[in-house]
Amino acid sequence: MKKIEIGKKILGENEKYALENLFFFTQQKKLCLNIISSPGSGKTTILAKTINELKGKIKIGVIEGDIQTDIDAERIRATEAPVVQINTEGSCHLSAAQISDALKQLPIEDLDLILIENVGNLVCPSAFDLGESGKIVVLSVPEGDDKPAKYPAIFAKSKVLLINKIDLLEGGQVDFDIERAQADARRLNKAIEIFPISARRGDGMADWCDWLVKSVEKSAQ
Amino acid sequence: MKKIEIGKKILGENEKYALENLFFFTQQKKLCLNIISSPGSGKTTILAKTINELKGKIKIGVIEGDIQTDIDAERIRATEAPVVQINTEGSCHLSAAQISDALKQLPIEDLDLILIENVGNLVCPSAFDLGESGKIVVLSVPEGDDKPAKYPAIFAKSKVLLINKIDLLEGGQVDFDIERAQADARRLNKAIEIFPISARRGDGMADWCDWLVKSVEKSAQ
Repeated sequence: MKKIEIGKKILGENEKYALENLFFFTQQKKLCLNIISSPGSGKTTILAKTINELKGKIKIGVIEGDIQTDIDAERIRATEAPVVQINTEGSCHLSAAQISDALKQLPIEDLDLILIENVGNLVCPSAFDLGESGKIVVLSVPEGDDKPAKYPAIFAKSKVLLINKIDLLEGGQVDFDIERAQADARRLNKAIEIFPISARRGDGMADWCDWLVKSVEKSAQ
Repeated sequence: MKKIEIGKKILGENEKYALENLFFFTQQKKLCLNIISSPGSGKTTILAKTINELKGKIKIGVIEGDIQTDIDAERIRATEAPVVQINTEGSCHLSAAQISDALKQLPIEDLDLILIENVGNLVCPSAFDLGESGKIVVLSVPEGDDKPAKYPAIFAKSKVLLINKIDLLEGGQVDFDIERAQADARRLNKAIEIFPISARRGDGMADWCDWLVKSVEKSAQ
């Protein structure tokens, strides 16, 4: 019984900050997206390419979540977008309180869109609301088409599924049935938007960026 | 304060079962390895190929950990190795108590080696001892060479690092500096054994299987 009570308290604490963050984004009319995937699905590459693609159109700030190192933040800094690094020091997900702190270090008024790169983990971050406007899940082709079926929570909760590294579908070195992955994701989440992309090569980035521009416009209304 | 106490109690409960499992493996002179990686690094493919490669040499039983589905257990069943499926129903790691239960369903006396495939997660499973003889971490080439630096705990704790999908190093579609990944892993863990493999194509599987045979022989002494 005790365990359940404490569990509620911890979640309650996170929810309190998440609600505050959500209220802040709504009031400021900013879009905030929480990007979640396994380690190495290409989140940072997607972020860097998206920022460069949208330069002059929308202003993006980034919150980088990592267990250790600021390797990812350095890659974002190269795009000249403002970035705040959070090191979780072993924790497997970002918390809403950490986002609340990070927001104070971003020039919010100058931004249209805040992108949060969560810790590389397809499981835990899905359970911790950050107050974001929506979640984006990234699945890369070499991870396999069975991931929506095997890790359903994050696919059920996300606004967008980015299927990354589709250049690896060519050449037959990787088995991945894209129809199966899409059908499984839609079975869990009818409304999910799916963009097959190769952030490295550029395929599909225009459609994803169009979706972002439209979503930013909606948030600003 | 309360949170810390409870945290200790939960870990204590897991440690109790982990010690029991470790005692069981030592007494039975069986090797048990806990295989940990991100989703989609190729754990199940490695297991299936290893079982087939070692047929007639060592007898392997498998404990499959998944959040949902028995897709992986089905793939292991096709090799005719005995397999027990654990569904964690949302939990991000296997616990020692679950392993204790699963062991009762395996024909232990007939086996030389028990392989545990943990939930796909490079973070949380590293913190939960299952009583295994050793941990094996799998890093696949498309995940990137920065993963030892970014997720140090599991690389620091593992006996073996399998660098999988090395066939993707060819053709230049994936950036991965194998020297950097190995150097970073060895910086965290001087004793770590590293086998670059392609479970799909077969590269390096003989060396990994030799290591397994020798480790099984040591455990049986």
